[in-house]
Amino acid sequence: MTRTIAPARGLSITGVAAGSFRKERDTFGDISVPAEKYWGAQTQRSLQNFDIGGAPERMPLPVIKAFAIIKKAAAIVNMETGLDKTVGNAIVQAADEVIEGKLDEHFPLVVWQTGSGTQTNMNVNEVISNRAIEILGGEIGSKKPVHPNDHVNNGQSSNDTFPTAMHVAAAIELNERLLPALQLLETALNEKVKAFNHIIKIGRTHLQDATPLTLGQEFSGYAQQVSFGIERVRAVLPRLYYLAQGGTAVGTGLNTKVGYDVKIADAIAKETGLPFKTAPNKFEALAAHDAIVEASGALNTLAVSLNKIANDIRLLGSGPRCGLGELSLPENEPGSSIMPGKVNPTQCEAMTMVCAQVVGNHTAITFAGAQGHFELNVFKPVLIRNLLHSTRLLADAAVSFTKNCVVGIQANEKRINSILNESLMLVTALNPYIGYDNAAKAAKKAHKEGTSLKEATVSLGLLTPEQFDQYVRPEQMIGPKL
Amino acid sequence: MTRTIAPARGLSITGVAAGSFRKERDTFGDISVPAEKYWGAQTQRSLQNFDIGGAPERMPLPVIKAFAIIKKAAAIVNMETGLDKTVGNAIVQAADEVIEGKLDEHFPLVVWQTGSGTQTNMNVNEVISNRAIEILGGEIGSKKPVHPNDHVNNGQSSNDTFPTAMHVAAAIELNERLLPALQLLETALNEKVKAFNHIIKIGRTHLQDATPLTLGQEFSGYAQQVSFGIERVRAVLPRLYYLAQGGTAVGTGLNTKVGYDVKIADAIAKETGLPFKTAPNKFEALAAHDAIVEASGALNTLAVSLNKIANDIRLLGSGPRCGLGELSLPENEPGSSIMPGKVNPTQCEAMTMVCAQVVGNHTAITFAGAQGHFELNVFKPVLIRNLLHSTRLLADAAVSFTKNCVVGIQANEKRINSILNESLMLVTALNPYIGYDNAAKAAKKAHKEGTSLKEATVSLGLLTPEQFDQYVRPEQMIGPKL
Amino acid sequence: MTRTIAPARGLSITGVAAGSFRKERDTFGDISVPAEKYWGAQTQRSLQNFDIGGAPERMPLPVIKAFAIIKKAAAIVNMETGLDKTVGNAIVQAADEVIEGKLDEHFPLVVWQTGSGTQTNMNVNEVISNRAIEILGGEIGSKKPVHPNDHVNNGQSSNDTFPTAMHVAAAIELNERLLPALQLLETALNEKVKAFNHIIKIGRTHLQDATPLTLGQEFSGYAQQVSFGIERVRAVLPRLYYLAQGGTAVGTGLNTKVGYDVKIADAIAKETGLPFKTAPNKFEALAAHDAIVEASGALNTLAVSLNKIANDIRLLGSGPRCGLGELSLPENEPGSSIMPGKVNPTQCEAMTMVCAQVVGNHTAITFAGAQGHFELNVFKPVLIRNLLHSTRLLADAAVSFTKNCVVGIQANEKRINSILNESLMLVTALNPYIGYDNAAKAAKKAHKEGTSLKEATVSLGLLTPEQFDQYVRPEQMIGPKL
Amino acid sequence: MTRTIAPARGLSITGVAAGSFRKERDTFGDISVPAEKYWGAQTQRSLQNFDIGGAPERMPLPVIKAFAIIKKAAAIVNMETGLDKTVGNAIVQAADEVIEGKLDEHFPLVVWQTGSGTQTNMNVNEVISNRAIEILGGEIGSKKPVHPNDHVNNGQSSNDTFPTAMHVAAAIELNERLLPALQLLETALNEKVKAFNHIIKIGRTHLQDATPLTLGQEFSGYAQQVSFGIERVRAVLPRLYYLAQGGTAVGTGLNTKVGYDVKIADAIAKETGLPFKTAPNKFEALAAHDAIVEASGALNTLAVSLNKIANDIRLLGSGPRCGLGELSLPENEPGSSIMPGKVNPTQCEAMTMVCAQVVGNHTAITFAGAQGHFELNVFKPVLIRNLLHSTRLLADAAVSFTKNCVVGIQANEKRINSILNESLMLVTALNPYIGYDNAAKAAKKAHKEGTSLKEATVSLGLLTPEQFDQYVRPEQMIGPKL
Repeated sequence: MTRTIAPARGLSITGVAAGSFRKERDTFGDISVPAEKYWGAQTQRSLQNFDIGGAPERMPLPVIKAFAIIKKAAAIVNMETGLDKTVGNAIVQAADEVIEGKLDEHFPLVVWQTGSGTQTNMNVNEVISNRAIEILGGEIGSKKPVHPNDHVNNGQSSNDTFPTAMHVAAAIELNERLLPALQLLETALNEKVKAFNHIIKIGRTHLQDATPLTLGQEFSGYAQQVSFGIERVRAVLPRLYYLAQGGTAVGTGLNTKVGYDVKIADAIAKETGLPFKTAPNKFEALAAHDAIVEASGALNTLAVSLNKIANDIRLLGSGPRCGLGELSLPENEPGSSIMPGKVNPTQCEAMTMVCAQVVGNHTAITFAGAQGHFELNVFKPVLIRNLLHSTRLLADAAVSFTKNCVVGIQANEKRINSILNESLMLVTALNPYIGYDNAAKAAKKAHKEGTSLKEATVSLGLLTPEQFDQYVRPEQMIGPKL
Repeated sequence: MTRTIAPARGLSITGVAAGSFRKERDTFGDISVPAEKYWGAQTQRSLQNFDIGGAPERMPLPVIKAFAIIKKAAAIVNMETGLDKTVGNAIVQAADEVIEGKLDEHFPLVVWQTGSGTQTNMNVNEVISNRAIEILGGEIGSKKPVHPNDHVNNGQSSNDTFPTAMHVAAAIELNERLLPALQLLETALNEKVKAFNHIIKIGRTHLQDATPLTLGQEFSGYAQQVSFGIERVRAVLPRLYYLAQGGTAVGTGLNTKVGYDVKIADAIAKETGLPFKTAPNKFEALAAHDAIVEASGALNTLAVSLNKIANDIRLLGSGPRCGLGELSLPENEPGSSIMPGKVNPTQCEAMTMVCAQVVGNHTAITFAGAQGHFELNVFKPVLIRNLLHSTRLLADAAVSFTKNCVVGIQANEKRINSILNESLMLVTALNPYIGYDNAAKAAKKAHKEGTSLKEATVSLGLLTPEQFDQYVRPEQMIGPKL
Repeated sequence: MTRTIAPARGLSITGVAAGSFRKERDTFGDISVPAEKYWGAQTQRSLQNFDIGGAPERMPLPVIKAFAIIKKAAAIVNMETGLDKTVGNAIVQAADEVIEGKLDEHFPLVVWQTGSGTQTNMNVNEVISNRAIEILGGEIGSKKPVHPNDHVNNGQSSNDTFPTAMHVAAAIELNERLLPALQLLETALNEKVKAFNHIIKIGRTHLQDATPLTLGQEFSGYAQQVSFGIERVRAVLPRLYYLAQGGTAVGTGLNTKVGYDVKIADAIAKETGLPFKTAPNKFEALAAHDAIVEASGALNTLAVSLNKIANDIRLLGSGPRCGLGELSLPENEPGSSIMPGKVNPTQCEAMTMVCAQVVGNHTAITFAGAQGHFELNVFKPVLIRNLLHSTRLLADAAVSFTKNCVVGIQANEKRINSILNESLMLVTALNPYIGYDNAAKAAKKAHKEGTSLKEATVSLGLLTPEQFDQYVRPEQMIGPKL
Repeated sequence: MTRTIAPARGLSITGVAAGSFRKERDTFGDISVPAEKYWGAQTQRSLQNFDIGGAPERMPLPVIKAFAIIKKAAAIVNMETGLDKTVGNAIVQAADEVIEGKLDEHFPLVVWQTGSGTQTNMNVNEVISNRAIEILGGEIGSKKPVHPNDHVNNGQSSNDTFPTAMHVAAAIELNERLLPALQLLETALNEKVKAFNHIIKIGRTHLQDATPLTLGQEFSGYAQQVSFGIERVRAVLPRLYYLAQGGTAVGTGLNTKVGYDVKIADAIAKETGLPFKTAPNKFEALAAHDAIVEASGALNTLAVSLNKIANDIRLLGSGPRCGLGELSLPENEPGSSIMPGKVNPTQCEAMTMVCAQVVGNHTAITFAGAQGHFELNVFKPVLIRNLLHSTRLLADAAVSFTKNCVVGIQANEKRINSILNESLMLVTALNPYIGYDNAAKAAKKAHKEGTSLKEATVSLGLLTPEQFDQYVRPEQMIGPKL
């Protein structure tokens, strides 16, 4: 069986390439499906009814993977209570192939489908049943011996399965993709804190010159932001670990047995190594997705933090001659063929663009999360799409920013020292020696005449150059007094 | 000394009513200030330079109160290390008057001022110093014996004081206003869960008839949302309890003594009864306000939850004849003089409007939080304004919604039961008795002919009326099987 | 009859000050109303049922004024078709007093009420009827000879009146407040374009040094943004000029005569001098407020523009020694008592905070606009509150920013010229004379050694100092070749 | 030369498939590029430096197409002023192939790159030059005889080319994709207006029963919303038709000749058939993207409109037994295998999810648009990505919603009529005949006893059944009186 590759992004995906077809069937009747695909009638119908956005809009793969984990867990639990082992094991094997990413091309549906995600649930049921049938030597499309509904979807409803897949996908991506990326960034920033700790520089408030601090102290603020960001992501996980599975159609658990919800949550926890448990209230778990909104809030805060950090770094790296010029950022690609030293802060730009997207995705999630009706919020696909999009972008951007920018940042110590010493705010150190009025006089003179503070102080006869150097010591201005 | 009342909302507040004036002075020189106000030169200058929005735009009073708490705490700590007791105690007394709300009219500045909030810090310094001078029998405006900067602002900078006031104000309002309001709502919803637990009703997914649940189960989902909302608000408090105080101008703590930050956080904790502590990194605490963005994220999630609840309730109460009509909401005001029974869900409307505002405020906070530069985020007033606005609105709306709507909701049991029994989805209960195909046939017939499921089943000769009543029992469809 | 002033912001407004009361009555029965207020039973009931947010949350006065314009117009049209002239003229007189702002204190209701704004409509009806009764010598509260419903609200429903008031208020505020403010700013910027047109400076892309332009050219971009902003505001007016009046309860115009809608729109146009006309479809005009969302979109774009401008200006004014230092902003208040020359860009900060708020308000409007049901969107108060808030803040901030910042901006020509000449990108001008490779060599040498481009070029023996000065002429790099 | 297909979505795109490579070179040196791809060194470097989000994050194809239009137009203009015709014509031919979509797979770069979009500009330059070289029989990668910079990018800078591509792509997509889709929807809605014009139904305000209107009138509100939406999209086009091209690096037009900007805008207008012209101010055109923010505002308003329409339709279609049940929506896929008549409003759900996304994308655009610095806004890729995403989703969803839902909507006249007649609000028609008090009495009785208004009126002896039928005529309540 050969596999063709997904059509290029941007193209409509309903058109089926020339090739052979087989018949699949659902309660609406027969429908033609590409012979080389595992999907069935309901998937095909959705493809034709929701021609919205094309291939780039497909349901994110982490959702597909999460679904396969659920189907596998369900098969395992169901085998304990009577599901035929041959069928059950074939489902497990097919689900494992989905988990491993071997069948990605068989999940063509876009996010913009039914708001319960039923069609993606059926896509997964159809693919797993057909692949399981194939494994067992049956005829694809025959629904025998593995039926997509009766066996693969056994004990489940789209209404509890899709929310479960949302939480499983989100929890995996946050744990396995985002948190490690943030830790990488945190570590790199902390290394800069150490490396830059001896470099005293001008502080800036209101973008105006202020009292000094060390460059290491400045970076410690960034590291703290990321560190709190990691805390914030962790703080939302408890409510993502609650699973809707077992609520079935409206939250009552109709058609399940008491305890099924606990068992399947355990099976999913075992499969993923994450502490999933059954949701304390299934009605909430189907009808609302506040946990997704909450998680997106953590990513939104993270975007705010990273936007600040990346923006500061590009401003500190501005120049080379006509900007602040305190930092040199690594040069990763040609800036300009004429101007040596023109290094565009491209990693900062990618990062701040990602932050803009995450902030926007959060609004989409908020809008969608607020609009559920009664027993079912039907904005499920758009909710999880945006949360996973934000997670992936932040994670990838954090890694890229760390590797291609942060680790290579160098301090332009000469420049940093030079403008620190040109600064007038060091005058505050003279108050104890020459009094406030004289200090102000010196500063005003320097400002007016464009000279250094030292020159002004000396020329006013207030201090000798040696005294000035003895009293004005920025290194004593970077912390509280003992 | 008489007090006049603040000018009406919407009016420009820079114009000073006819009356007597005194001179106040700052480094820019003399300026006239209304004789009956405690504020000084810098406040007056800000009034004149920032004529934006008028009186409704004033800095929220919880910020003023938080500032007074800080000033009191600072005076207490400063007295331990040398501040004259007479001066210190007068500051404490004046600060207490501000805390008690006695001097509200002396804080006329709007939110739209300098982004560090310096002018509000000076407003507080000026009012407390002038009131303390008055207490000590001195001349208002003389800065003797209590100087706004040297004494009231002693050891502080606007740059660490305003962020501290933000956190103190937010933490107090969330603890004292929002959380109790949410608990009130949670309790009322849980009482409905109990009261409605016996009422079996149609479930609705995709707004379409689905399998049944109890009205109590439906309300349990709402109660769970609010309960999680309380958890979410609590989850953001730890990072709000960190205080910037002691960071002074740029986070280094210049001009303080080692340990000052810890002492002042302790004093504030003691004054408020909340577990404030000094921020682990003062650079982050001045330059970023991620904790405010995070807290707003929790309120945003809460708005999403409450929007869903209020929207469901008004839909369930729609009618009286042409809607769903499952609930009767309390009638608090004339709906229509002609139509008895027309009760508009006005509390739901107020609540969902508040939710819209909170979602909007969250965007403002996100936008503002992302744009700090270097050592200082200069969107502080807009950040705290929006967080406090959201907190106040959600709290007040939760109380109003609870008192004027939730507690008075009544179930229209007759109607609920009637439409449940008209529903066709109960057919699922017949599968074990007459088989799927016959069940489908009965349901299709009923749908086509507009009859009841029972009529269709009986007329098809599939069951007797008695059998139908025996098999179709919604009360067995509202939970998993034992 | 004496008037007391509104309670201070932040206080609950339901509590009525000690004083005398009178009875008012509606279909719910009697209720006590403060004797010195013109409002009636329905207003009082709303005050008590919607204790949300307190006085700062009152319905914006421009809505009250717009309502009074409508009531006046209705009385005029109604007198043509039978309304008693004595009654009609008293309504007109009372409405005029509201328009003039004489009765502001009689409109205590908050935004967070019924979503149709019915209670504010009744507040206006009650105040105008009681004041008209008073004018005619009747007894306040008697509803005779001027009845709030039968006379003041004659031919109207809240459902068409509130949307009309929204459009009238918005159109007036945009025309009379915002557009003049923007024109003031545009003029001030254009004056800077002229004043700065001779000043050649370094360009900056990616925050990195780039080819030169004049400071006037840079400001011309800002002026163009404001100019387009004015166009954008004007572009949304046509759909705001459409009025819902005449649609009555659900858009059908029940209880009006054919042509009433046209007549009342004409009367409102005459009263306001703005080209209002009746909406082409009244169902849309009641059920949706897309025109408000659209108008908010224009303000959102304006906020984006002004944020960019204010941010650029504070960055260009950063320093005085350690920033870019190209501009000096006017010093309006003490920056720091120690550091002469430290001028905080406080007007830029107020402006960018306003922009954050406008962006947030736009999200609130979007959220609220999207959620109408059937014949009525019931987020009307929150929609108009946010649009008027954004309008007022942008207008006031534009005026403040213009007067207190833009007109006083000065160029630091010496600094601008100095860093321009230090820049390396002028090397591009040498390509025709010494070839690309030699030019690059010179630039690289200068960058590496920290010398000027001229020094590097001369020391490499590529040009004489005179030749360098002849070839490198920034003034020839600021436009296309002829 | 064979073409391989793009890697599946979700995969990292930096890894190059096993295969042969060639060397390409830029100022950073040599780099290996897959032999079968036309892209060059700078594209390859970007691929490796920006491993963010994988294939689904690629720069949207309409941007690539717009770039090719610009390159073609530039070649045409450049040939007039000296560009070698052989080279120029090869560029034109290669550009045409890009425009036709033949080379899509050669544009692998993601949105999250440099904020100026330089790397995509270079990707286009490299692909067109290599393809042109191939056409002319040269060696790919040799840059001879067609150089990516000297020839393809001749007279351009990324800084003016990318903004031009943004406007061209947006204008084409809005004109060719969105507007026709909206017109399709408008037409379909207007057909329903006609078809439903005779059907009188209950009106609903506050979700409560109100006075009647026709179903056609109700749909006319939707049609008007879409019609205004079309106006709104058209209203933003004028500012999108302004092109930055000719501004080059910072807006001055350095390295172009006077008039070049006009010529190239003309050429682009000719190529596209759209009235593009050169921007009146190039500084604004590079440094700000307010026109994109404005256009997104129009799409945001459209999303608000469509959300309302789709939400109303699914509510009107709710049921079949326990909802409003006024409409039957077409059944496109299995709803439930058990419940005939359960038709989930899946097209409404897809539409409202799209609306949520568009609202979110608008926030991303707003955030990004507000943050430019000096001569260049460096959020260009994220801005255009979101605008095109919103445009595509709205267009596709409008078509899908029209075809798969609107055209097939059927009115359940029997049900509509039945609940209209059960309604109590028709009592308003009796006021002239039996007086307000008696009418209220009848309505109250009916409400209390659950009977019809007619029954109550007759049983109270107020009217005969014949009189009731004569007086209560909903068809006289659906418009103003003549």
